[in-house]
Amino acid sequence: MAKVQLGPSRSIYPMPALLVGANVNGKPNFMAVAWGNMACAEPPMATVAIRTSRHTHTGIEQNRTFSINVPSTDLVKETDYCGVASGARADKVKNCRFTVFYGKLDTAPLIEQCPINIECSVVHSLELGSHTLYVGRVEEVHASSDCLTDGRLDLDKVRPFSFLGEPAQQYHAVGEFQGKAFSIGLELKSREKPG
Amino acid sequence: MAKVQLGPSRSIYPMPALLVGANVNGKPNFMAVAWGNMACAEPPMATVAIRTSRHTHTGIEQNRTFSINVPSTDLVKETDYCGVASGARADKVKNCRFTVFYGKLDTAPLIEQCPINIECSVVHSLELGSHTLYVGRVEEVHASSDCLTDGRLDLDKVRPFSFLGEPAQQYHAVGEFQGKAFSIGLELKSREKPG
Repeated sequence: MAKVQLGPSRSIYPMPALLVGANVNGKPNFMAVAWGNMACAEPPMATVAIRTSRHTHTGIEQNRTFSINVPSTDLVKETDYCGVASGARADKVKNCRFTVFYGKLDTAPLIEQCPINIECSVVHSLELGSHTLYVGRVEEVHASSDCLTDGRLDLDKVRPFSFLGEPAQQYHAVGEFQGKAFSIGLELKSREKPG
Repeated sequence: MAKVQLGPSRSIYPMPALLVGANVNGKPNFMAVAWGNMACAEPPMATVAIRTSRHTHTGIEQNRTFSINVPSTDLVKETDYCGVASGARADKVKNCRFTVFYGKLDTAPLIEQCPINIECSVVHSLELGSHTLYVGRVEEVHASSDCLTDGRLDLDKVRPFSFLGEPAQQYHAVGEFQGKAFSIGLELKSREKPG
């Protein structure tokens, strides 16, 4: 199979569509972030990469806390708006009609309309260039009660969505089931050869 | 809307299903990783979080290089197998029938069958607890020529897939189109109120 070189591009697919929150000058603000993920299991930590010019960056620097809100497909427009607008010029909370609440941390604003809300306190930050990578300890996770089934998160109710970066630049729902993790690969164990 | 507290859980959805490669004692090995993403645009950098007990962790520590390979839905079984098997006991490359190649870095093995291959050299590593977070500078990206249309990546041909963590633990294809990024949110600009 022939390979072509694309240069050092941004080519991880698919990425989560997230809304990262921070209080900036005491006021809640949110931005769309695709460059976030979990980073550690014990203790639970998550990362977000934030462009240094963003209003959210100012807020995280002020309080060393942030939130990660997982929007559902109901909120695709609001998520994208939070990516194109700047909290320095517009009140995104009002314009999106978000209801903001706080959990354990006084400075990590959470969006009630998002089915999952993750509160983080910064434990590391790395200045990488255009972006700062924040590593946050997960202090608490809140879930909308109508997205649970038998007390556990039900992802069919959460309906998270993904962002496909360049060249697509599109949001997509979670698609067809492809297999159970830690299970579908076990049949390859039968042809295992020692290492 | 009522919220319930889930505790400090791992609740980011959806995550990318990736195969991270490293040479361990000079031999290529791959593991399934969902905790990876981009971290910086200029210069391009990516992160992967690797459990310290993993064979891949040993390899990244030995060479300070790794690869991120984006598998297509054709490789769901192989991806999952690389998550459940250990390179300390099995030859995953043989068992998955992967063809390995190298690009700019001599110690970042790449999988020919994966449509996208990203070579990284470690610029930061953070010991977070159960996992080490590696930040790698993207040195080169390779793409399978049959996944391009007019010289650009065509994600309908790449067919990347996502991992939904607990409690689902499932792989899913990229689903229905939800909107164009940096565009669908613009209609909310019309009701913008100053910040």
